[in-house]
Amino acid sequence: MIDILGDWKKSHFCGDLRAADIGKEVCLMGWVQRRRDHGGLIFIDLRDRQGIAQLALDPDRDPEAHAKAEKVRSEYVVAVRGIVSARPEGTVNPKMATGEVEVEVKELRVLNSSETPPFMIEDHADVAENIRLKHRYIDLRRPGLQSNLMLRHKVAQIVRTYLNDNGFIEIETPVLTKSTPEGARDYLVPSRVNPGMFYALPQSPQLFKQLLMVSGFDRYYQIVKCFRDEDLRADRQPEFTQIDCELSFVDRQDIMTIMEGMIARVFRDTLGIELPLPMPRITYTEAMARFGVDNPDMRFGLELVEISNIVKDCGFKVFAEAVKKGGIVKLLNARECASFSRKELDDLTEFVKIYGAKGLAYVKVQEDGSWQSPITKFFTDKEIALIDEAADAKPGDLLLFAADTCKVANESLGRLRGLLGQKLGLARKDDFRFVWVTDFPLLEWDGETRRHVAVHHPFTAPLDEDVALLDGDPGSARAKAYDLVLNGSEIGGGSIRIHNREIQNKMFSLMGITAEEAEEKFGFLLNALSYGAPPHGGIAFGLDRLMMILTGSESIRDVIAFPKTQKATCLLSEAPGAVDDKQLRELSIRRAARTN
Amino acid sequence: MIDILGDWKKSHFCGDLRAADIGKEVCLMGWVQRRRDHGGLIFIDLRDRQGIAQLALDPDRDPEAHAKAEKVRSEYVVAVRGIVSARPEGTVNPKMATGEVEVEVKELRVLNSSETPPFMIEDHADVAENIRLKHRYIDLRRPGLQSNLMLRHKVAQIVRTYLNDNGFIEIETPVLTKSTPEGARDYLVPSRVNPGMFYALPQSPQLFKQLLMVSGFDRYYQIVKCFRDEDLRADRQPEFTQIDCELSFVDRQDIMTIMEGMIARVFRDTLGIELPLPMPRITYTEAMARFGVDNPDMRFGLELVEISNIVKDCGFKVFAEAVKKGGIVKLLNARECASFSRKELDDLTEFVKIYGAKGLAYVKVQEDGSWQSPITKFFTDKEIALIDEAADAKPGDLLLFAADTCKVANESLGRLRGLLGQKLGLARKDDFRFVWVTDFPLLEWDGETRRHVAVHHPFTAPLDEDVALLDGDPGSARAKAYDLVLNGSEIGGGSIRIHNREIQNKMFSLMGITAEEAEEKFGFLLNALSYGAPPHGGIAFGLDRLMMILTGSESIRDVIAFPKTQKATCLLSEAPGAVDDKQLRELSIRRAARTN
Repeated sequence: MIDILGDWKKSHFCGDLRAADIGKEVCLMGWVQRRRDHGGLIFIDLRDRQGIAQLALDPDRDPEAHAKAEKVRSEYVVAVRGIVSARPEGTVNPKMATGEVEVEVKELRVLNSSETPPFMIEDHADVAENIRLKHRYIDLRRPGLQSNLMLRHKVAQIVRTYLNDNGFIEIETPVLTKSTPEGARDYLVPSRVNPGMFYALPQSPQLFKQLLMVSGFDRYYQIVKCFRDEDLRADRQPEFTQIDCELSFVDRQDIMTIMEGMIARVFRDTLGIELPLPMPRITYTEAMARFGVDNPDMRFGLELVEISNIVKDCGFKVFAEAVKKGGIVKLLNARECASFSRKELDDLTEFVKIYGAKGLAYVKVQEDGSWQSPITKFFTDKEIALIDEAADAKPGDLLLFAADTCKVANESLGRLRGLLGQKLGLARKDDFRFVWVTDFPLLEWDGETRRHVAVHHPFTAPLDEDVALLDGDPGSARAKAYDLVLNGSEIGGGSIRIHNREIQNKMFSLMGITAEEAEEKFGFLLNALSYGAPPHGGIAFGLDRLMMILTGSESIRDVIAFPKTQKATCLLSEAPGAVDDKQLRELSIRRAARTN
Repeated sequence: MIDILGDWKKSHFCGDLRAADIGKEVCLMGWVQRRRDHGGLIFIDLRDRQGIAQLALDPDRDPEAHAKAEKVRSEYVVAVRGIVSARPEGTVNPKMATGEVEVEVKELRVLNSSETPPFMIEDHADVAENIRLKHRYIDLRRPGLQSNLMLRHKVAQIVRTYLNDNGFIEIETPVLTKSTPEGARDYLVPSRVNPGMFYALPQSPQLFKQLLMVSGFDRYYQIVKCFRDEDLRADRQPEFTQIDCELSFVDRQDIMTIMEGMIARVFRDTLGIELPLPMPRITYTEAMARFGVDNPDMRFGLELVEISNIVKDCGFKVFAEAVKKGGIVKLLNARECASFSRKELDDLTEFVKIYGAKGLAYVKVQEDGSWQSPITKFFTDKEIALIDEAADAKPGDLLLFAADTCKVANESLGRLRGLLGQKLGLARKDDFRFVWVTDFPLLEWDGETRRHVAVHHPFTAPLDEDVALLDGDPGSARAKAYDLVLNGSEIGGGSIRIHNREIQNKMFSLMGITAEEAEEKFGFLLNALSYGAPPHGGIAFGLDRLMMILTGSESIRDVIAFPKTQKATCLLSEAPGAVDDKQLRELSIRRAARTN
């Protein structure tokens, strides 16, 4: 066989050369990052996925190679043969991994030329994102994106190895599946063979993985694409990747222990960080009480304190009436923030309004311990003393109050806590604080449709001790659900599933789903529960989110090779695109007349 | 936390117990395969994914457990605690892996009951496939399907480990991508955000993996779902899984060497078979000459021999005229088959007619070496001697002849060869003979559309020595393409890609694709080739097909957890299904009026 490379075989990656390689004959192939002419010599920075090597071409020593090198430009693809040598004294570059060596080039071949790229291959080049996405194959040459995707590869292998070692079996579930109107909006795929019928792309392999447990596979996993046709936020993509797991014959404790072990392995083998195990666990109720949210950032304190009992009869009407109407009053002690300006306080007030708060009362604790605040006058000395005690107030502190419904007070103060953690520099990016949040409510009441909806999903089991509540007080029943929260972000969540058909029927009925509807939508699951379903549960982690955290990326698009825009388009391939009428006819569908 | 299993923790898999475990306290959880009452004792065969353990319950020793055991039925989910003990003499079952031991049960809990399953959990139960697919979660309990999917898991891990060790990086490519009208029919996904536009599910990640090479990732792989909306044959599924690879800075030899190493690793670590390496390689031309097909079964001889030159002027018009019209005459020597009956010969004749042959001439070589055949009289002694020599004819042989166009003669005789290999028992199922077929034609002429079409795909590079042919005689140009063939089935195929924009433009133009069309459909690839594309190539293996071979399965549905029928439906979830009009309105599509 005659082939273009002939007997040229790449011997090393450019970025892997070190002083230990001095004297070796090497063959490198890569891209020209830069060419410099310097006193007759030519220096080329040759780049590949591992890094950059400096090539040196001497016109006296190797005139032919030197002549060819004169013609190369940025991003030309070049192969060279030469000898690794120590850089001359004074030219060592300690900032480069290969900075001690260079390659004395004996032979050079241009494997491909390149037009001038639309932007420089540099991590901090100031280029509009749409230009970078359109030329993604060039943007992906940036060292930052290269290392993000290589780390993603590494994480996938660490996860698989850990799960394999723990008895999990990787099993593929279908991509062409059935639409389930619960949950988010489905992507649909018209069926040609079954006209008028549609497949749906899976929002998760939930039902299939439960069926695999019913089949006896004991432990399942899959690193799998899932799909949601939702309006996209900054950190969402139409297709996203889950580390999806399901286990039989286990309780919540088992699952949390195995899974935190996996996360710890990932952090150890990527960032070199040993996470303390077991990870802390708090209930949903405790999370709401202390942090106002169910995904608390544990890197700092600033915990919320409820003072409803202290202020329920106080002279400040806003507080007293909130409690009387069934709401609550909570405070957050922003330590040493009494010096906040009027403007800063106004900004915080505007911030909590986003979450429905009508205002934000504050107290500055002065050097002598007394309050400076517009609301001081409404409180008795005893009330002030009790509030100070509840807040552990010290001179220089800033107390911030929310008085509203439970939901608004918690959310506004909880979000304010997050904002302050950032603002005060308490949320360090390299500090990783995990917490399991457990015992979520099972159901919540939807005032609009006047029925209960599942907080997690309809297959989540109630706590054993709360099963009896399903008959009288279903809204109070708690779920065997757990979320893993890292620095204020949920990175994974799951639950023990219902394995008992009667309880599953009851859940559907509480959710206003008739027996017929349940049979139509989930009949195969209900049947499966009748034929020997084991106790089982599972969890799913968002791999994209996890990779953002591990790489310190601001954008989800920096951890995905070919991401879509917030309009769900691929600027590179121009998907979605137009299709022939013939294709639509074969699928028995037509475009609807434009109505918008 | 109070949980259903409490302090019961599964200690072993049922199927893993051995004599070495005798005396251990164990906790098993699994499914009741069978319950037998025998002289007051109860024996339960408890099954999990690893196999079956025998439980023994003695009413005198543990009356409570025994009483509970009386109520269990087939497929109940049961947890037991007990002691592993040696089976009494005479009751050891050498056919079972756990046949030396049983578990003396101290405690028993029923974790779930089961209705009587619709069929027995046995590998050879005689149940219609549609019943099994509808209750797939029960069917998947069969040991055969369990071990198929566990082996599939193992193969995926072997492949990944091998590729990781060889510098490949696993990178995910999009599932929501753009329709490319070349190739098979796409599955389409209407876009809600971009009304009237459609995504397509990928038939392969071809363009994305080439772009990853342009980006400098050097070596890529993915075990990835691909989609083709084709009418299904027995061994096809709408979604199928590929082991997809692409490499930069390599030639064909490098790719074949790396990939045959991967296949050898899989065979060694699953079946314990050491495949001889390197695997044999033959050109397409040689494969067609010797075997009549491009996917030859190398387990046996029965090679084809062309005798056009010998018979071009012979007295047998059928032969002479075939040659005169530009066709060929070939023979196949079916060794020691002269005893075939009239009926057997008629069946072979009917068989070759499927492939367009008008008939099948035959010669039985008698004990004295002379011919017994209706066509003997048309040949001179010299012609007979030359044909005998070409066929290496011996007494007892059966010579079978095809005289037709090159295509029909090769295909009919090539397929007949395959049939005879089966019929004569030459194709042993446990004999694995690999061969690389190389140097395929680059283009073939499509008489209907009157243009060239790519034999592999339009990105396949021509042989370096054939590039010049593109201008004058493109139909004669050969491709840098290679298929890996095992026992007559293509299990993988790939090629070196075009990395030069001018050659890619020329390919499109030879295929009758205008510059504008090319720009519209493949603009991003053409652009990518302009910005420093390295020499690169790749390959994809069909994982489903490979698993069929490794497990000896007759049906592709036996190596996929949740397969679809030949009507592309999932009998379990009833996908595809009806959807709400509201969903279609949101997607700006309507059902077309029925026209069929």
